[in-house]
Amino acid sequence: MARVRVGVNGFGTIGKRVAEAIMLQPDMELVGVTKTKPDYTAKYAVSRGIPVYVPKESLEEFQAKGIEPAGTIEELLEKVDVIVDATPGGTGRKYKPLYEKAGVKMIFQGGEKADIAELSFSTLCNYEQALGKTSLRVVSCNTTGLLRAICSISRLAPVRRVRATIVRRAADPKEIKRGPVNAIKPDPVKTPSHHALDVKTVLPDLDIVTMAVVVPTTLMHVHIVYAELEKPVTREDVVATFESTPRILLADASYGLASTAELVEYARDLGRKRYDIPELIVWLDSIAVNGVEVMWMQAVHQEAIVVPENIDAIRAVAELAKTAEETIRITDERLGLLKGRIP
Amino acid sequence: MARVRVGVNGFGTIGKRVAEAIMLQPDMELVGVTKTKPDYTAKYAVSRGIPVYVPKESLEEFQAKGIEPAGTIEELLEKVDVIVDATPGGTGRKYKPLYEKAGVKMIFQGGEKADIAELSFSTLCNYEQALGKTSLRVVSCNTTGLLRAICSISRLAPVRRVRATIVRRAADPKEIKRGPVNAIKPDPVKTPSHHALDVKTVLPDLDIVTMAVVVPTTLMHVHIVYAELEKPVTREDVVATFESTPRILLADASYGLASTAELVEYARDLGRKRYDIPELIVWLDSIAVNGVEVMWMQAVHQEAIVVPENIDAIRAVAELAKTAEETIRITDERLGLLKGRIP
Repeated sequence: MARVRVGVNGFGTIGKRVAEAIMLQPDMELVGVTKTKPDYTAKYAVSRGIPVYVPKESLEEFQAKGIEPAGTIEELLEKVDVIVDATPGGTGRKYKPLYEKAGVKMIFQGGEKADIAELSFSTLCNYEQALGKTSLRVVSCNTTGLLRAICSISRLAPVRRVRATIVRRAADPKEIKRGPVNAIKPDPVKTPSHHALDVKTVLPDLDIVTMAVVVPTTLMHVHIVYAELEKPVTREDVVATFESTPRILLADASYGLASTAELVEYARDLGRKRYDIPELIVWLDSIAVNGVEVMWMQAVHQEAIVVPENIDAIRAVAELAKTAEETIRITDERLGLLKGRIP
Repeated sequence: MARVRVGVNGFGTIGKRVAEAIMLQPDMELVGVTKTKPDYTAKYAVSRGIPVYVPKESLEEFQAKGIEPAGTIEELLEKVDVIVDATPGGTGRKYKPLYEKAGVKMIFQGGEKADIAELSFSTLCNYEQALGKTSLRVVSCNTTGLLRAICSISRLAPVRRVRATIVRRAADPKEIKRGPVNAIKPDPVKTPSHHALDVKTVLPDLDIVTMAVVVPTTLMHVHIVYAELEKPVTREDVVATFESTPRILLADASYGLASTAELVEYARDLGRKRYDIPELIVWLDSIAVNGVEVMWMQAVHQEAIVVPENIDAIRAVAELAKTAEETIRITDERLGLLKGRIP
């Protein structure tokens, strides 16, 4: 079978990770990525053998910095079956007409409004619905984290209600803009936060409310989740369900994995590139069950969690795998994702 | 009427604030405070005309640093009707036999276990129950904040259920021990956190669960609260109830009061000593109502919130005011507490 040809528009936090993940897949070929500025990541891409496509008017600017572009963005679109849009939030909408003109399938990110694509996508929740679609939107990092946990637990009993707190990192590690240095900032101060609305783009009937605060840290988000199921379950049920769900890892705090900083140190000790943690981390110790009520705390690595879902989204639009199980098997093996318990 | 004679054991974060609050009350006399080390706060107390009592074995150490003690801790206990124990958490239990021997009434802090006193105390919830008791325990800052809001809302309808997230400041501003610098730390990682159990020392029948995380900030705690009442209410009901409850302030984020840092700046602009905010701050914009469900975000100034309750506790054990309303009127006027909306 010919490999599906994929381009990645944007080579920032998400784009570079998705591009490198595509290179590891047996059924995909990374045709190239785009860059609008000749910065160090453009050089990095070239040094890794990744063709870099640039705006026509920037060709000379790149050449002047010693970076030889493989062509223009329009030329990239001519060569691919699927484009992953990893441009900054809201920018995908500007590119969409260009993608449509080229007749390529499109994967957008959670920073775009839900109506940009035919379906908001989360592998564990709606992979089969996404098969063969022309456009998908991979929901954001926090929403991906919430959906993985909710759709995992749904295997036990339908989820009736979720009330969750999102404790957000202030900025990604590389960002040097000013954020809260010594404050807790409700963001937004209005209830609910957009995360609940975003979850409903995938699970429209779920009764979910979220509130979010931003705190002075860069490593990971943390969610505190209060959920209610349609029937009573036991703690053992919940632990076993999370434990057997791909892309969810149960962390045992008693081994010194009791904070986001220690989870990141663990990923560094594993030798993971950029200390990426694409798995959703659920703290084993935090899981508490009271009849129909299930409560837990989880951590989301904002830079990495959506990468596997982007790969699955490519496979869905290109119909390279017929089931969620099948795409997860390939993606997770190639990206080295863990499941079960750590350490 | 003779003023009740009060001593404060400990002159740290809580002790210094309670001592100065006692000095402002018309029906109380601050006989003195205790210090175990001759540091700058001992000099500060003396400079403010506050007699400092010290352990017998430390008399010379204080004199050597130019601080003349007013006597020993035992001598202080001979001169007072009520002692406020503001020693570090867990230390009150060691002093209790000394207080009992002296026959004084005792006010402990939330750092002690609930069984140290006859009643765990929160003015808005159980002032009248506390009248004439020999010992009270003023619950901790987070618990005081939760109880003020819950007992306020109880005036609308009984509260059936509370699920709350506590986002805790890592350390008080003066603390220089190491805390999380760039992490979010579940604390404890086990569900529920002690805050729910502490609320139940005052409201034993309330169905409440709390989970807590610590974040790298020193200014204030933030709570995200999901509550259920016994009957449906409107948002207007809730706003009006919080607005009319003493010691609760509704902050309008649209005026630039959308984070703990901005609340503290507001207190500094008011010229408040040490930027203290003894009021519970509820973000007006965050209040959302859905039938029986009421949700909101609130901020707690950990150093100051329990000060008014300590003053009320003194009045309760000494029977200086017969109702919560009466003690609140005196305390809040003397301490300059605001109610209603800010700005």
